[in-house]
Amino acid sequence: MGDKKAILLLSGGLDSSTCGIIARDMGFDIYAMTFAYGQRHEFELTAAKKVACFLSAKEHRIVNIDLRAFGSSALTSDIDVPKARDISNSSDIPITYVPARNTIFLSYALAWAEVIDCTDIFIGVNSIDYSGYPDCRPEYIAAYEKMANLATVAAIQGRTIKIHTPLISLLKAQIIKIGLKAGMDYSITHSCYDPAEDGTPCGLCDSCQIRKKGFDEAALLL
Amino acid sequence: MGDKKAILLLSGGLDSSTCGIIARDMGFDIYAMTFAYGQRHEFELTAAKKVACFLSAKEHRIVNIDLRAFGSSALTSDIDVPKARDISNSSDIPITYVPARNTIFLSYALAWAEVIDCTDIFIGVNSIDYSGYPDCRPEYIAAYEKMANLATVAAIQGRTIKIHTPLISLLKAQIIKIGLKAGMDYSITHSCYDPAEDGTPCGLCDSCQIRKKGFDEAALLL
Repeated sequence: MGDKKAILLLSGGLDSSTCGIIARDMGFDIYAMTFAYGQRHEFELTAAKKVACFLSAKEHRIVNIDLRAFGSSALTSDIDVPKARDISNSSDIPITYVPARNTIFLSYALAWAEVIDCTDIFIGVNSIDYSGYPDCRPEYIAAYEKMANLATVAAIQGRTIKIHTPLISLLKAQIIKIGLKAGMDYSITHSCYDPAEDGTPCGLCDSCQIRKKGFDEAALLL
Repeated sequence: MGDKKAILLLSGGLDSSTCGIIARDMGFDIYAMTFAYGQRHEFELTAAKKVACFLSAKEHRIVNIDLRAFGSSALTSDIDVPKARDISNSSDIPITYVPARNTIFLSYALAWAEVIDCTDIFIGVNSIDYSGYPDCRPEYIAAYEKMANLATVAAIQGRTIKIHTPLISLLKAQIIKIGLKAGMDYSITHSCYDPAEDGTPCGLCDSCQIRKKGFDEAALLL
């Protein structure tokens, strides 16, 4: 490893973990950042710790933020997580959307990047399987990057901040294939929005369905 | 008052309070948001509560965030607040700069705006007296607004988010003059970065100096 640093927004799920192994294989030292934001699926924090360890992260910060103060998402309030929904119809914005979540997460990453003198931020957003989330789209990421390059001292000093989204235009099966080829151990990752207390996935929420479909299709690609 | 809602980022200082009275006089109902971010000058939280009350805010949320996790600013770490600095030389970025602070604050405001179905956010940034802060510049705000209009469900549904910065090109004395004409009670506001425990301002930090200079000059304008 050299002295290239990257902030990795790491949920402990399939996408962010794959994003991490891609960053590592690009020669970056990983500074992982995970948010405890009152989500139902706190088990993902445990997964995030395992993945950070697997990626030999230099540091792993778990930041407590209280998105529940705003309510209105099934992931952070008392609304039931939808089960066995038809995920092939993704034109609606799912109830699991958390207001401005990626904007808040990227803003924390930007602050940490500035402090550790890092200009590379990795986020595992994906516009294919989750086209219903406005803050997973390429045009959003481009606008965020432009703003970030005006927001910081690094920007004033002429160093360019890059928001890396290596998964943005990939199908879930392609993401899994890339991860498996790079040696990712997906058994330590976690996707379910509504797991049992011991972390067992429900198998029915959108995230479980998308994960299963991804592995099924990846099997055909390998 | 009508049904126009505005989020006001309210520190309890002179600028955000004036920004609030401007928003109120534009006919907005005020939803004030204040951050407890481990700042030295926690006394400003008390001032923020008084100002929110003065502005008849519909709600006032105090959000706990831990910017100290990132360190590196005199406002949030053990670095001494500079005293009796020559504020007429503002080409350097002051040590009191908090990394990505406005980016984080605006992101929380954006999340709340989305939840309460509001498209107007007021922030009292000023590019004249604080040209050293990258995230107080008009080009930064314009880029943030553009990003915000791609980040949210409101954006997808065609409602435009507006980041209002009524003070951005005003001198401190002009800000004070506008506030006084609108009936702002500045005695309840607080500016000092390093007050005594009872809130008495130090009189020497940048913020105290700028406040005093502003009132001196406003006296000539009135």
